[in-house]
Amino acid sequence: MSATTQSPAIARYPVPALADLPEDIRSRILAVQEKSGFVPNVFLAYARRPDEFRAFFAYHDALMEKESGLTKAEREMIVVATSGANNCHYCVVAHGAILRVRARNPLIADQVAINHRKADITPRQLAMLDFAMTVALDAQDIDDEDFEVLREHGFSDEDIWDIAAVAAFFALSNRMANFTRMRPNDEFYLMGRLPKEK
Amino acid sequence: MSATTQSPAIARYPVPALADLPEDIRSRILAVQEKSGFVPNVFLAYARRPDEFRAFFAYHDALMEKESGLTKAEREMIVVATSGANNCHYCVVAHGAILRVRARNPLIADQVAINHRKADITPRQLAMLDFAMTVALDAQDIDDEDFEVLREHGFSDEDIWDIAAVAAFFALSNRMANFTRMRPNDEFYLMGRLPKEK
Amino acid sequence: MSATTQSPAIARYPVPALADLPEDIRSRILAVQEKSGFVPNVFLAYARRPDEFRAFFAYHDALMEKESGLTKAEREMIVVATSGANNCHYCVVAHGAILRVRARNPLIADQVAINHRKADITPRQLAMLDFAMTVALDAQDIDDEDFEVLREHGFSDEDIWDIAAVAAFFALSNRMANFTRMRPNDEFYLMGRLPKEK
Amino acid sequence: MSATTQSPAIARYPVPALADLPEDIRSRILAVQEKSGFVPNVFLAYARRPDEFRAFFAYHDALMEKESGLTKAEREMIVVATSGANNCHYCVVAHGAILRVRARNPLIADQVAINHRKADITPRQLAMLDFAMTVALDAQDIDDEDFEVLREHGFSDEDIWDIAAVAAFFALSNRMANFTRMRPNDEFYLMGRLPKEK
Amino acid sequence: MSATTQSPAIARYPVPALADLPEDIRSRILAVQEKSGFVPNVFLAYARRPDEFRAFFAYHDALMEKESGLTKAEREMIVVATSGANNCHYCVVAHGAILRVRARNPLIADQVAINHRKADITPRQLAMLDFAMTVALDAQDIDDEDFEVLREHGFSDEDIWDIAAVAAFFALSNRMANFTRMRPNDEFYLMGRLPKEK
Amino acid sequence: MSATTQSPAIARYPVPALADLPEDIRSRILAVQEKSGFVPNVFLAYARRPDEFRAFFAYHDALMEKESGLTKAEREMIVVATSGANNCHYCVVAHGAILRVRARNPLIADQVAINHRKADITPRQLAMLDFAMTVALDAQDIDDEDFEVLREHGFSDEDIWDIAAVAAFFALSNRMANFTRMRPNDEFYLMGRLPKEK
Repeated sequence: MSATTQSPAIARYPVPALADLPEDIRSRILAVQEKSGFVPNVFLAYARRPDEFRAFFAYHDALMEKESGLTKAEREMIVVATSGANNCHYCVVAHGAILRVRARNPLIADQVAINHRKADITPRQLAMLDFAMTVALDAQDIDDEDFEVLREHGFSDEDIWDIAAVAAFFALSNRMANFTRMRPNDEFYLMGRLPKEK
Repeated sequence: MSATTQSPAIARYPVPALADLPEDIRSRILAVQEKSGFVPNVFLAYARRPDEFRAFFAYHDALMEKESGLTKAEREMIVVATSGANNCHYCVVAHGAILRVRARNPLIADQVAINHRKADITPRQLAMLDFAMTVALDAQDIDDEDFEVLREHGFSDEDIWDIAAVAAFFALSNRMANFTRMRPNDEFYLMGRLPKEK
Repeated sequence: MSATTQSPAIARYPVPALADLPEDIRSRILAVQEKSGFVPNVFLAYARRPDEFRAFFAYHDALMEKESGLTKAEREMIVVATSGANNCHYCVVAHGAILRVRARNPLIADQVAINHRKADITPRQLAMLDFAMTVALDAQDIDDEDFEVLREHGFSDEDIWDIAAVAAFFALSNRMANFTRMRPNDEFYLMGRLPKEK
Repeated sequence: MSATTQSPAIARYPVPALADLPEDIRSRILAVQEKSGFVPNVFLAYARRPDEFRAFFAYHDALMEKESGLTKAEREMIVVATSGANNCHYCVVAHGAILRVRARNPLIADQVAINHRKADITPRQLAMLDFAMTVALDAQDIDDEDFEVLREHGFSDEDIWDIAAVAAFFALSNRMANFTRMRPNDEFYLMGRLPKEK
Repeated sequence: MSATTQSPAIARYPVPALADLPEDIRSRILAVQEKSGFVPNVFLAYARRPDEFRAFFAYHDALMEKESGLTKAEREMIVVATSGANNCHYCVVAHGAILRVRARNPLIADQVAINHRKADITPRQLAMLDFAMTVALDAQDIDDEDFEVLREHGFSDEDIWDIAAVAAFFALSNRMANFTRMRPNDEFYLMGRLPKEK
Repeated sequence: MSATTQSPAIARYPVPALADLPEDIRSRILAVQEKSGFVPNVFLAYARRPDEFRAFFAYHDALMEKESGLTKAEREMIVVATSGANNCHYCVVAHGAILRVRARNPLIADQVAINHRKADITPRQLAMLDFAMTVALDAQDIDDEDFEVLREHGFSDEDIWDIAAVAAFFALSNRMANFTRMRPNDEFYLMGRLPKEK
């Protein structure tokens, strides 16, 4: 497939050589390459600004890797749904892949990206995504009723913070990816779609 | 994968038995099954209203199957881009599959569905999709300047009609799919994504 | 009145001569001329694309002429309200005329076109138009609650399909009329406004 | 026609008896009745608040009755276009009637109310209405370029103030009419539509 | 501070000399200068159109100075909240000052201007501002339910008219201030913010 | 003033005691208190989530404290303008104060918060804020033309990244502040407004 052999640029801004990066950033990038088999372009696009790189991934990990009342797949659902609403190509494709893998479900990411209301999710997850969309699109309107709806679905106040924080963090991430014209790696598109992968 | 063995309903409305359908509709459905290996759910969802079924597919074929200055893949791009803008899960997934097959490109559908401005397309195709989005979302504002931009990219007036007509037809189709909660067949999600298929 | 003697073009695209049309299309046009006393421009604007003409009017008739739990006047209300929301000059003027005639009410079309919430309609019709507007403008948000509201007003599931299908069909029609700059015939403006007509 | 004999209320709020009104307001109402043959409901709806009545009509007259680089018909076009954008039933119907009479054109009001871009107007009038719509809907974005476009069409700075002031005044008027559910008199609907009237 | 000594123009349009104004307008301006210590620019910007000046301030006074079930501070809250929604720099700054003075609260204006839902106001005032925002932004949707909510908070029908009328009047005022690029006087910014003023 | 002595809660979520915080966070908070004379509530609201606190302020400092082609005042302008667009009460009030101090201009923050197009800023700053608003509200539409406009105003590609990154970071921050109902400290409202402060 020619598309993969002649891939367009990773992003609008030049990407530094791995050798020129600070040690901690190079190590992180090599570790993710070791684990995933490739380096997701977001690492390369951010590497030219080491301080922003460090803060971005520290924030990401603080939300996405920690223990939470939300499963990791649920947190990825929030990423995919709000990134779809923000028309963020990079985040929908890359986190769609992660969602498929984490949910062990090859269909869920495309469903949630286009219209979470039609997705094969539980009523609790629907309430979670409704609120995430409010954070993404209408945060100024959040009020006590939003909290009550979520509590009725069994979310604790810490869970609610997690939903909001993931949606808010990707409000930042979506804007940076759209601004830099960040390109998702070709590898993401197929990831988690084949039975053998699970 | 349990998701495919326990698939939710095809749509909100009951689906008639094939045996109960008028002969022309049953034949059409069997023909598509023969060709594709499965029956796309849009045929089953519409079959309960034979006159609407006939008009819908006659319109579809008049636009999507005919000779045109737009390739079939380009027409599918219009479908996918405008269906993404309309948050139509069925049309993005089903026509995304057709687009991948027709364009022999496993990446293009996901790109166009989320943000056509970031897709790997030509400037001519970008102008085509910009106009299709205007038809989908702001048809009341169309004026002579829109035509001039398209003519500069080499589109004839017949091509421009084709762009508009495809976007307008899927304005209908997206609304019916969202209204009936039409569910894309599981087969569509992976179609056109694997090298061997091409 | 000079405006009628020097009428602008029917649409952006040239209109074929009646003699050059396929027999079935010419017959349909002559029949409507016989019945109405003039040929509504939509027939002429579409005639240059015979297959699209046939599908368009087949779809139109399948929805607007059949038996339904909605009266013909109610279906025209849906057309006028959603065409107003889509700023479609042709459809508001032409179907406004038909609505006045079918409802035997000279005021209703102007009311519904501008703000259906202020129109002289029943609560059941208000619920019908609220839902039609959702189909026209926010179909991605339709959910079970919309159906429940309509059922409380006595609409059957087939009636609800009719409401949605009319709104969806005119989503297509409005876009084509705005795209082609289709001009309503001068005859429509006054039709159904005078007592003697009824 | 039963609709006119059993007319719904003029507005949400009760209407005072003519005899109970202050002399200047009663006189104004009687004068307009003398001239028009009926009392437009806006006079009755506002009469219960004499100070607001006086200011409202003083403002109206200062803009609509004075000498201006815009014809009276052009000023009514601004009213009808912006009232359509604001979904104001009263103002579209009542000022649509006045526009038909002043322009001696039975078609223009329905055109301008639904989509001024498709109306039979001059390029200068199109620029005027484009700017009026900006005042009505996006006044915060007005900048020097808007003035330059209007000057190219021959509008003086006083004309531009007139355009803006009419659009701004009806921003108030449309909101009061929608708030009070003000009902246009049945007489307006047909006014200016018949050849004999001119 | 150089900004105050080299103030930009009061507005796009030239301001007449006080000596050239009609006596009633000059008197009004001198009276406000006497009372406030400066002439708010809105008086100067409007003075070039005496009839509009008179109607504008007569309307303003009819709403803002009269007896009402709303306190004067509450009416200023409506002005500030809706002017914020309309991005009207003049009205937020000038009426923000008046609100601080009338409410004897140095914080309230900035809160209400940015997001009335987060302001330190009573539930009754929140309902009042919610409705005022509907009048400002979505008046076409007002229906009986809006009235019921307000009545539950103790507002009479006359109070409700007052809320709507203030929001509607500033729909006009905001548009004129944005159109004329009206500049708030530097004096307003600090007014009502210091303890000694109260 | 009673409002300050009985201040409402800092945010929806409880605030931890300073003594219970990790040493690095407590030190940071004490340092800011030492410098400012009070602890801005954002530090307290975030402190209950130490990892998010660290990432948030690391990101903030990486953008707002570093050397840049944008002055610190210009970066605060971006914060205030986009926070106004997002209706974020905390960020407008707190960063409005910082902007006044850094720009040595008591008027600029209120101008930029309500309508940056009417603010006393240079054409270069206007282009900067226009782009920041696009990042905040329409990042999906960013294309090469946006970069060209900024380059014409003398912005380097690193400056453009800075503009986008500040707007994107406050997309996150605004959402968290609105979600947590974060309350600006009373001290911010008056800061930078008095001549003696400079």
